[in-house]
Amino acid sequence: MTKTLRIAVIGAGRMGADHIQRLNTRIHGAEVAAVVDVDLARAQAAIEGIPGAVALADAEEALGNGDVNAVLIATPGFLHEDILLKAIAKDIPILCEKPLTPDAGSAWKIVEAEEKLGHKRIQVGFMRRFDAEYAALGSVIRDGELGELLMLHHQHRNPTTPAGFTNEMLINDSVVHEFDAVRFFTGEEITSVQVRLGKATRNAPNGQHDPQHVLLETESGVLADVEIYVNAQFGYEVATQASLETGIVSIGNDTGPYVRTAGRWGGAVAPGFEARFGAAYDTEIQAWVDAALCGGIGGPSAWDGYATAACCEAGIEAQRTGGKVAVALKPKPALYA
Amino acid sequence: MTKTLRIAVIGAGRMGADHIQRLNTRIHGAEVAAVVDVDLARAQAAIEGIPGAVALADAEEALGNGDVNAVLIATPGFLHEDILLKAIAKDIPILCEKPLTPDAGSAWKIVEAEEKLGHKRIQVGFMRRFDAEYAALGSVIRDGELGELLMLHHQHRNPTTPAGFTNEMLINDSVVHEFDAVRFFTGEEITSVQVRLGKATRNAPNGQHDPQHVLLETESGVLADVEIYVNAQFGYEVATQASLETGIVSIGNDTGPYVRTAGRWGGAVAPGFEARFGAAYDTEIQAWVDAALCGGIGGPSAWDGYATAACCEAGIEAQRTGGKVAVALKPKPALYA
Amino acid sequence: MTKTLRIAVIGAGRMGADHIQRLNTRIHGAEVAAVVDVDLARAQAAIEGIPGAVALADAEEALGNGDVNAVLIATPGFLHEDILLKAIAKDIPILCEKPLTPDAGSAWKIVEAEEKLGHKRIQVGFMRRFDAEYAALGSVIRDGELGELLMLHHQHRNPTTPAGFTNEMLINDSVVHEFDAVRFFTGEEITSVQVRLGKATRNAPNGQHDPQHVLLETESGVLADVEIYVNAQFGYEVATQASLETGIVSIGNDTGPYVRTAGRWGGAVAPGFEARFGAAYDTEIQAWVDAALCGGIGGPSAWDGYATAACCEAGIEAQRTGGKVAVALKPKPALYA
Amino acid sequence: MTKTLRIAVIGAGRMGADHIQRLNTRIHGAEVAAVVDVDLARAQAAIEGIPGAVALADAEEALGNGDVNAVLIATPGFLHEDILLKAIAKDIPILCEKPLTPDAGSAWKIVEAEEKLGHKRIQVGFMRRFDAEYAALGSVIRDGELGELLMLHHQHRNPTTPAGFTNEMLINDSVVHEFDAVRFFTGEEITSVQVRLGKATRNAPNGQHDPQHVLLETESGVLADVEIYVNAQFGYEVATQASLETGIVSIGNDTGPYVRTAGRWGGAVAPGFEARFGAAYDTEIQAWVDAALCGGIGGPSAWDGYATAACCEAGIEAQRTGGKVAVALKPKPALYA
Repeated sequence: MTKTLRIAVIGAGRMGADHIQRLNTRIHGAEVAAVVDVDLARAQAAIEGIPGAVALADAEEALGNGDVNAVLIATPGFLHEDILLKAIAKDIPILCEKPLTPDAGSAWKIVEAEEKLGHKRIQVGFMRRFDAEYAALGSVIRDGELGELLMLHHQHRNPTTPAGFTNEMLINDSVVHEFDAVRFFTGEEITSVQVRLGKATRNAPNGQHDPQHVLLETESGVLADVEIYVNAQFGYEVATQASLETGIVSIGNDTGPYVRTAGRWGGAVAPGFEARFGAAYDTEIQAWVDAALCGGIGGPSAWDGYATAACCEAGIEAQRTGGKVAVALKPKPALYA
Repeated sequence: MTKTLRIAVIGAGRMGADHIQRLNTRIHGAEVAAVVDVDLARAQAAIEGIPGAVALADAEEALGNGDVNAVLIATPGFLHEDILLKAIAKDIPILCEKPLTPDAGSAWKIVEAEEKLGHKRIQVGFMRRFDAEYAALGSVIRDGELGELLMLHHQHRNPTTPAGFTNEMLINDSVVHEFDAVRFFTGEEITSVQVRLGKATRNAPNGQHDPQHVLLETESGVLADVEIYVNAQFGYEVATQASLETGIVSIGNDTGPYVRTAGRWGGAVAPGFEARFGAAYDTEIQAWVDAALCGGIGGPSAWDGYATAACCEAGIEAQRTGGKVAVALKPKPALYA
Repeated sequence: MTKTLRIAVIGAGRMGADHIQRLNTRIHGAEVAAVVDVDLARAQAAIEGIPGAVALADAEEALGNGDVNAVLIATPGFLHEDILLKAIAKDIPILCEKPLTPDAGSAWKIVEAEEKLGHKRIQVGFMRRFDAEYAALGSVIRDGELGELLMLHHQHRNPTTPAGFTNEMLINDSVVHEFDAVRFFTGEEITSVQVRLGKATRNAPNGQHDPQHVLLETESGVLADVEIYVNAQFGYEVATQASLETGIVSIGNDTGPYVRTAGRWGGAVAPGFEARFGAAYDTEIQAWVDAALCGGIGGPSAWDGYATAACCEAGIEAQRTGGKVAVALKPKPALYA
Repeated sequence: MTKTLRIAVIGAGRMGADHIQRLNTRIHGAEVAAVVDVDLARAQAAIEGIPGAVALADAEEALGNGDVNAVLIATPGFLHEDILLKAIAKDIPILCEKPLTPDAGSAWKIVEAEEKLGHKRIQVGFMRRFDAEYAALGSVIRDGELGELLMLHHQHRNPTTPAGFTNEMLINDSVVHEFDAVRFFTGEEITSVQVRLGKATRNAPNGQHDPQHVLLETESGVLADVEIYVNAQFGYEVATQASLETGIVSIGNDTGPYVRTAGRWGGAVAPGFEARFGAAYDTEIQAWVDAALCGGIGGPSAWDGYATAACCEAGIEAQRTGGKVAVALKPKPALYA
């Protein structure tokens, strides 16, 4: 057992830079050993003020660095497969930002590689599971005090989308969180996806159809739906309402200072995911570090990455056809049982 | 113009008795002149303490009573058609509890009879339009300050169902309110209905499948959905969340004294529709009385009764087939334009 | 017993006009028979469209009108004493807007006159007792489920004050409502008043010191305080927080549509007392009419008017001295026991 | 500059054990080097599983340990003075749980000793300043967008008190937090304290008079008050409502999952300060560690400890006399300007 994780962070973009800052100021038991970015200047800027950290342009070089004993992957998803396979070969702790890989086929290869390794090394960055209210709702459901879970209603709203955002990304980058959330809350796999396209906002650029209404079913028949609305203008909101046999539980309600001024009551809406889920990211990374120092993982596995990738594939087909599309999953390997 | 409505209330059951009490103590400009019930003893009990009111067993006799100049119909729906046609023939103000009639075919006959009469005499008892928050949401939508309405999400929850409640009644008696609400909020007709049946509560008696998830579309493509859950145990709740282009508006949130005791914060859930919508009923009846004294109607028309009956027929077929069922409407007569 | 109250409304200003409208459109069992105002044109405008009502310039003439069998007094407070004594002499139902009279001495004369009459004819317009949440808090306290009441914290905030508003009026016209509320919630008399004057807003005109912090004690030692802030700009708010032995109960919280737009969540603050307490006024007047038709009163008595006048006198002295001022009350006559 | 704080934690009771856990699992840049407790077994239990930490029975020995470069004092307050003076002599970073010392006289000696040292080494554990909502309210007040702060209303409620809790402790251990909060929000010193004793709960043991109503004034005349209620049974609550010139801001409102079940809506009240302020403690300790590694302090100073001790002395006299007691402060040394 190592006392401190010496982490190579691969990718120094928005998410990577956020994690570097987190590891360098708030996470106990971990340090940034290397930052890798194809843009070497960006990597160099990211390590400024971090004693003992090096900037590199090549992920393989970082994995080979004797000072590195763990890796956090924060590059765009299409680059994940190659780095993951090399890190699995090194048998070191891996935190991989979602998606595991962009499609179910490549995700399955990762699952197979890890299964062959024989123990879990990969934790996937579905950080919502570490949000205090998500965790609380999960407990309520599992405790069974309110009976069986019957329905889940999700709202997922962003103020605007970045340049180049597409209808496919609305599923792969946004709804993917709800695919994982539904799996987390129910403890079941999703069996089908349907997408309703109705009246669209005039504020969506680039041919995006926004909002969309996504309908899911799970193995036991739980009906879930997601109102995904990524150009909602007013701010960022992620909320869930669970219907159980003897009660309803809502999470993600607005909080913060309550103000009365200028004829209105209320408060400020979170402007983006950093404000809403910052604490969840901290908790996620700390859980990974704590588990990695003991040789395990502390959150969603490669199987979770694979299963959500299969949901995304079904979701994109459902967007295109309007019909209900079944989610096809291979049998779950024993490692993830 | 008459100064006071002298009303024959047809039906002295739960709803009728409630209206008699309302007319006799809180409504200005109206009085109970007669109460009709096939159970004459029930009619007699209902008029106790009301000076000048008579108890009768026959609706036709009440309509022929010279002291009666308006009628409020609160019998079971299958009895409405006959009374409505006779009251239309008398050309007096009519408030008819929903449904107008139980099916689109008979409702269309009422529309035709009123059209032939040449002016609107029938107001249908969709009282939610008179709830202060429903009215406020309607204003927000029409004002257009938050842009176009895009989606509507409805929750409709009852604690339990009365003996004999069926899956058809879940559409005809419960979701019918949301059919009207969606029409009210959008100002459009509903074009299709789909019903999802998933995991069911163990608390639903008599082979009811509960909850159900009902999906609606309107003429301009607004996507609406209804979580109907009639054995939800915890209490009564009717809420709506509207997504517009630049904001989200929710109505039906819990109110009342806010209590902290015994380790929890919160308040009491309304036990039933009387507590939740009592003020809306008062407002509805006063609006009808005020309009009737001026020769008109003050709320939903026979056309609204017909159009929702057509939605109910589609809804019941959708329950059976699982598919999306189109709502078929005849052209709207000029009287209701 | 009369079937309908035929009411003379004395005073057709803001409050009087509001009551005339209420009686003419929403109150069952009562009608406006006469409107009296020294400005006869204002009285004439007020009866427009009310069949059978007359406009007069003199209250005594109205009380002598054979068509009048009840009186609602809505003139400025300094005119109340004379009208009250004449109406008591007529032995007809009286609803008198608060204050009963402007000082404890003259209020005591009214109490004596009514006591001599031998039965209660005067109801005083402390309408907050008829607000649904006030009533609910009153029930919670009396039920004793949360133990004894220990403390009461009140917020009373107005957006602005009318021209001519003074520090004395802040006690006599505003805090007088809390004097009655504390008496209503505790069922006890107030024994002392203290007023704290601290940092003042720059938005208060005319030498008003605003806000002020008013401290009260009751017979059993309940500590109450009132944050009175009458130029608070943001809107109108009246709220109370009660501390009991095993819980805390709050009323007066914000309600209404919940909106998320432009980076904030929340809703609209009531602009004034009409929006906040409109339903309470309706309930108050209906309760008075119902009771008056049976020969009694349905709310606060002349004693309540006298006791709050004594509190106001103590409050104004407390404003001046900064010290704790005892409230002096004569023994309660048997009529009000 | 040292890379890691090696901390001696003095006192392994409830608060000390909590901080040891925090330092050992969540705080970046700090480690537990030693734990001191007169009960050596308790110290030994506390270091279990912490590599490199030693258990000691004597604080002086810990301060002399070459592996120790910082100290966190979590003993009862009456032991603080001696340890503080020794740690000041060592010129190492000090985090001292509140109170700095139990009375103004001894606190002033600490201020003088630090002033003589010439730089700030002592941070006092008023952790509420690190609560996200406290910080947000502080920002709102300083930003001036809502005008000047005029009044502050505080609620501070505990479920029960530990054995031996006294009326003096109610001021010294509980209200001391509000003394600091009022100073933090206003940026001013408190000039007087008054205590109102009214009706008391039957649930307070040991002759405690509970609740109490504490009235404060600041240099510019801001009126603050505190409802302190330490046997409130229902749970733990700390909330503040600030009245500004154009608005009201409330913090400390209930949050968490929103549940509807069994006829009620709401959620769970925090059972104690750990749940309510756990995140604030983490933030406080991380701020201290970050600042200490740069040679400074990251929160309330010894002056804050002294000034609140002077408020406590006035508060206890006010409890006894019922009158308004002035707070006497020596001039502020330049070090704290």
